[in-house]
Formats: sequence, structure tokens, C-alpha cells
Amino acid sequence: MKPMGTIPADYRAIGGELAVGGHPVSALVAEAGDTPLFVYDRAIMAARVAALRAALPAEVAIHYAMKANPNPDVVAAFAGLVDGLDVASAGEMGVALASGMAADHVSFAGPGKRDRELEAAIAAGVTLNLESAAEGWRAIAIAGRLGIRPRLAVRVNPDFEIKGSGMRMGGGARPFGVDEAEAAALCRDMIAAGADWRGFHIFAGSQALDAAAIIEAQAATLALAARLAEEVGALPPLVNLGGGFGIPYFPSEKPLDIDTIGAALGERLADRPAALAQSAFAIELGRWLVGEAGVYLTRIVDRKISHGEVFLVTDGGLHHQLAASGNFGTVVRRNYPVAIASRFTEEAAEVASIVGCLCTPLDRLAEKVLLPRAEVGDIVAVFMAGAYGATASPSAFLGHPPAIEMMVG
Amino acid sequence: MKPMGTIPADYRAIGGELAVGGHPVSALVAEAGDTPLFVYDRAIMAARVAALRAALPAEVAIHYAMKANPNPDVVAAFAGLVDGLDVASAGEMGVALASGMAADHVSFAGPGKRDRELEAAIAAGVTLNLESAAEGWRAIAIAGRLGIRPRLAVRVNPDFEIKGSGMRMGGGARPFGVDEAEAAALCRDMIAAGADWRGFHIFAGSQALDAAAIIEAQAATLALAARLAEEVGALPPLVNLGGGFGIPYFPSEKPLDIDTIGAALGERLADRPAALAQSAFAIELGRWLVGEAGVYLTRIVDRKISHGEVFLVTDGGLHHQLAASGNFGTVVRRNYPVAIASRFTEEAAEVASIVGCLCTPLDRLAEKVLLPRAEVGDIVAVFMAGAYGATASPSAFLGHPPAIEMMVG
Repeated sequence: MKPMGTIPADYRAIGGELAVGGHPVSALVAEAGDTPLFVYDRAIMAARVAALRAALPAEVAIHYAMKANPNPDVVAAFAGLVDGLDVASAGEMGVALASGMAADHVSFAGPGKRDRELEAAIAAGVTLNLESAAEGWRAIAIAGRLGIRPRLAVRVNPDFEIKGSGMRMGGGARPFGVDEAEAAALCRDMIAAGADWRGFHIFAGSQALDAAAIIEAQAATLALAARLAEEVGALPPLVNLGGGFGIPYFPSEKPLDIDTIGAALGERLADRPAALAQSAFAIELGRWLVGEAGVYLTRIVDRKISHGEVFLVTDGGLHHQLAASGNFGTVVRRNYPVAIASRFTEEAAEVASIVGCLCTPLDRLAEKVLLPRAEVGDIVAVFMAGAYGATASPSAFLGHPPAIEMMVG
Repeated sequence: MKPMGTIPADYRAIGGELAVGGHPVSALVAEAGDTPLFVYDRAIMAARVAALRAALPAEVAIHYAMKANPNPDVVAAFAGLVDGLDVASAGEMGVALASGMAADHVSFAGPGKRDRELEAAIAAGVTLNLESAAEGWRAIAIAGRLGIRPRLAVRVNPDFEIKGSGMRMGGGARPFGVDEAEAAALCRDMIAAGADWRGFHIFAGSQALDAAAIIEAQAATLALAARLAEEVGALPPLVNLGGGFGIPYFPSEKPLDIDTIGAALGERLADRPAALAQSAFAIELGRWLVGEAGVYLTRIVDRKISHGEVFLVTDGGLHHQLAASGNFGTVVRRNYPVAIASRFTEEAAEVASIVGCLCTPLDRLAEKVLLPRAEVGDIVAVFMAGAYGATASPSAFLGHPPAIEMMVG
């Protein structure tokens, strides 16, 4: 038997079944008309935003990083809850602008922006987080041609990173942003070229669960922003402090202590250097806001015993849930929290592996976990499916249909 | 500096550029109208089939496993070259039947086949490779309802595997096929229930580069098929010997010696037990037939120096080439063969990393490789892109457009 992660505390049972947004999974599947499906619970998203607002200093804006889940209904829900949207492509920008979020509250980061993406962003009035000097000059040239003053911020590649973060975004040579040593000069150049300079974007890591490491990185980010502002000789309108808040996927991982982070950030901001006195601040989060709000539901198509081991074969798989299969950014496969959703309150009775319908040994949704005894027709839930699920998976692999996505709550 | 894999010997230069199918990459990109694109060379596919026919005993049929690349033009090309198509979903089956391949030369393997998939296969006359007894009985019930005699083979989960194969498909508890100990009984049951029993499908591994290991697995497969045929008490019309032929992606990997494999298989077949005297045989390959026939072309959008390291930022990335980024079924990231396709004959002059346009540190197409000095606008080629490329990657991730796919030669 192998352990699995902890099911988020937001989920309840109705009539013995897992319920999402107040609906038992059998009703959700009936409404969708088929499996597999992703169900996103608006109430959990709203609860995360509310908890974050309560924890953070009032002056810190909350941005939703769309890369975690660009589903238009999800983005529209966040547009009514948060203060800004961060996008990583012209495609995401289109969804952001359609959500009702004002263009000057949308920012666009990402290496390798094409000219047509820069043009679309400048024309829309979206802030570009510049990833290099060359990108800055391309933006200036395009803006000149369009006759629009571009909103430009500079993404800084910090010399530090969030210690222990799941993915390193800063510290040393990176494709993201402009090295600390060159950031101020680029800001000055952009200001001199007539840009509406919006400040700094400093992103030091992601999927961190250690509050102390995030506090340390935020302090370093503020110090770096202040130093750069002095070098620029102008007050940055906005300092995007990045994100990096993780969620507990695996056994032994614990939820992040956001109250401690918020209190420490409040103290730092109260004491901040004069160079940042007039600045606004933002935290940019994707996974933390939406990851726990999503559940992936898939039906058991076959129940097999091979060499004494039980395999529950589902109609879903890694084509919708690559990360849960352990094949996206993880070295050692571990089990996400899963459940037999249609027997959510039944006692565990056997050890089983849950696999997908793909003809590859990579397609494992849970390995040797303790579950109630499940039969063909039962519904499996994979939790933590709200972020980096449907769009971060190879949906066309092996020619199966895409997953349905549904919003509730 | 880190090493990269070897560029397949099939590729040539024209006017200093990489050529695919006789066309320089600049012409291919111009014809496609945009980057990134996959280019598949029909001549390389045909050469692989021809080499395999020359190496294998004449009585061994060649099947193309569509999961490697289900692009309709690729499948149509193989339909004219090989003897059968193997599919892993109803979606793939639709492409296979549209290619012109006769239904009785199409087989459908995969755990978790749904009733509607079984029904579509039975109605079309496609052979189902059964993954469990329960699936067999579902097929019998559906066939009875349709009034059609179903073509059923039994996929066997062998107790052995291809030693050193990149992915283990057999040996011990697996979700694939029926354990050796239960396979004969299922065949007898299906025959008794009136099915048109087609024989065995025995798949012991994939991406193996050791000819001796494949020879050993093929010998074990023949011995197992003969033993099971005796247990069944009927002659299997077809023994699908599986595939498992690998291609060399990484430094130090060498092409598989198919002539040695073919010679050994010929000897084994000449000596085969009486139970298999009337059987036909097939080898089922995907990656080996098409992997080297594809190239992924992406344009450099930015050239950056961070802490002294050169990053070439492209308009492509892991959303089209997940495996090349090291995030699909590999534990340690290694470099696929890559080139600056627009400077294919230029001397190497610098160490650079090639990254994609996605805002994630996972998006690396090549790490610290020795290349000619490249500039913005140059075209990068990632080789070994014909198999497990476009459809095995999260194409919707971060909202970038899908890659173009083009057939040449």
C-alpha cells in the first residue's frame, strides 16, 4: 500500500456520495451527460480569495495567474473576485479581456512573445512584463507604429529564489526576465523612449509550502524593488511580488500558513523604503487560488486482477490529468488524493491501483491506495484538479475525447 | 556543455539549410505560413518499412501502431506501406478506417474500452484485442445485440518483459491484457460463445535498443503463444508479437540492429512448434517507423544572455514537444538531437540553451548544447519528432496556437 495526499477539507458527502458545490457526483455526471469531467467549485475559489484578503495587508492586490486554469468560466469567476489577471499568451489575453476585467488590470508575462502578441497587448492597453531588452525595443517600435503609449513593466530575474519551491523561477541563469544587473537600465531606456512604465514583476518560485521561505523571498523582493527603483530614479507604480504559494498534493505536505505570510508582509510594507512609498503591490497566484477548487471525475470501466493486484481501469487518464499521473514536473511519482466518489463514505476495504484508459504504463492515476471496494460503473474522483489539469495535459493523446468542464457553486 | 543525441542519418543540407523531403526549411516554413510546425517525411517512413521488410522473415506482417502519430496523412501513408494498423481508441479507429486500410487488418487494443467503442469496432469488423474477461463478455453481449460475429483476439500479459526496455508492458501485475494463467480459458470461452477468435496479442515492452533482449522476448513470446494455443486447443490465426523496437534519442544510444533480430526471428519461426504451424505473425511498431521521419521546426523569437549563459527563446515548446522537454516518461532530462536548421552547415560556435515560449522552467528543448551562433529569426529543428510529438503534448497549455503539421516527400 502507498499513501495518498489529503483530500481538501472543503469537500462533503451527500447521500454517501462526494458532493461538489452541493451536488452529488451522480447528479453532476448526469448533468454533464458523460465522463470524464472536471468540476470547478466557485464557492471554493471565492473562499480562497476571501481567506487571502483577510490574511494579506489591505494594500496588496490579488492577481489571478490564468495559466493555472484558463477555462473561460473560471476566469470570469475570478474576474469578479480579484484585482487583476496575469496572462502568458495572446490566447489567454483574449479570454482575460472577454471576462470583463479592465485591460489596465491585465498583465502579460512570458518569454518569446511574438510581435503580433506585443501588438495585440499594446493595442488593448494591457501591461507587458518585459522579458528582455530586445523585447522592450520591439514593443517600443510596435507602439510607435500604432501611435499608442505602451504600458511596460520589467520582469526581473532575481538573484534569489524561494527556497524549497517546487519550480525555480529565479536565482542564476534563467530564460525569464532581465537579470538584476540590467533591469534598471532597461526601465530607464523604456521611460526615455516614452513608455508608460508600470514598475517591476519579480517572480522567485512556485509551489512553495514553507511560509518562512516565502516571507524571506518577499522581503528580498521588496529590497530588490527598492534598490532598482533608486537606480531607475523613478517610483514604480506597481511591484508585482510574484506568487509561489503552494498547495499540499502529497502525503506529509501541509497547507501553507498564509496568515503568517500576510502578517510578515504587512510589517515589511509598513517599514518599506521611501523609493516604494507610493507603489501599489500585487501578489500573483494561480494554483493556490484554483487548484483545490477542481475535481476530476472518471468512471470505472473495468475491474481487473493481475497477479493478485487490483486494477480499476477508468475512462479517464493522463490525457486529462498528466500531473496526477506523475509525468509533469515531478521526478518521483506520488499519489494525489483520490476517492471512490460514488462510495465516498464507505469504509476502505482493499488496496487498488487506479489507471487510465490509455495504452501506456505511464497512465496511472493512483498506485496501490486503500479504498472502498469499487465496481464497474463507480465514479473515481481525483482531487487537486483545478490547476494544471485539462490544459496542462495531452488531450489529443490516443484519440480519446476531451474532458467536459463544468462550473458549480 | 551537455551532449545531445545524434541527428538521424536521413537528413541533408540544401544551400546551407536543413532540408526535409528535399525542401529547405525556409521553404517549408514559407509554405506553412507560420511556425512552429511538424514536418513528416514520407520517404523516411517508406525507407523504414522497406528496411524492416528486408530484415524480417517474409511471413511476418508489419503493423503500424497509430498511437505514435495519428495524423491522418501519416496514417494514410502507412496504410499504403504496411499490412495492418493498430489503434488504441475509437477516435484512432475512425482515422484508420478512413485511411483505406481494410477493417479486418485493423486491431484495437487498450484497457478501459467503453461499450460504445466495443460496439463501433464490432460493427466495423475490427479485431478487438481483449484486455480482460469482463471486456470479452461485454463484447459478446454487444455483438449478440448487433447480430454480428465479433473478431476477438486476447491480449496476454506475459510473465516476461523485454529487458532494458524504456517502458515495461509485461512482467508481473499490469493493467494490460490477461495474465498468462487465465488467457487460454478466456480464448476457449470466447470461441464457445461464437466469436471469430483471431489469436493472441503479446506486447512485452517498448523503446528497446538491445537486439538480444528483443530476440529473447520474441522467443519467449513464440513459446508462450504455442503453449497457450495447446491449452486453447485451437490454432491461433494470428500471433501479434508486439513491437518494442526503440530509436536512439540520446547520446550514447545506438540504432537497433534489426537485421540480427530478423535473422533470429526467421530461425525461430522455421523451428516453431506445431501449434503455430498455420499461424500468421505480425510485428507492431509505431515509434520505430515514424519517430525519425518527423522534425519540429520553431523560430527564435529572442536571444538572451542571463548570468553569462545564452538562451535562445523560440515560439515553440513543450506544448508541442513534451517528450523533448524531458517531461514525459523520463526521469532524467537529456537532450534530443537539435540543430539551428537555418544554419545547418555552419560550424558550432557557442553553447546555448533552447527554451520554449511557455512561462515555466519545464519548457526546455535543449540544455547547454554546442551550436552555430543563432540570431532572432533563425529556425531551430528538434529531431525525433515524428512519434509522440504533437498529440502526446499539452497543446492547449498557456493558450498558444497548435502546431502546424505538414507531410513531404
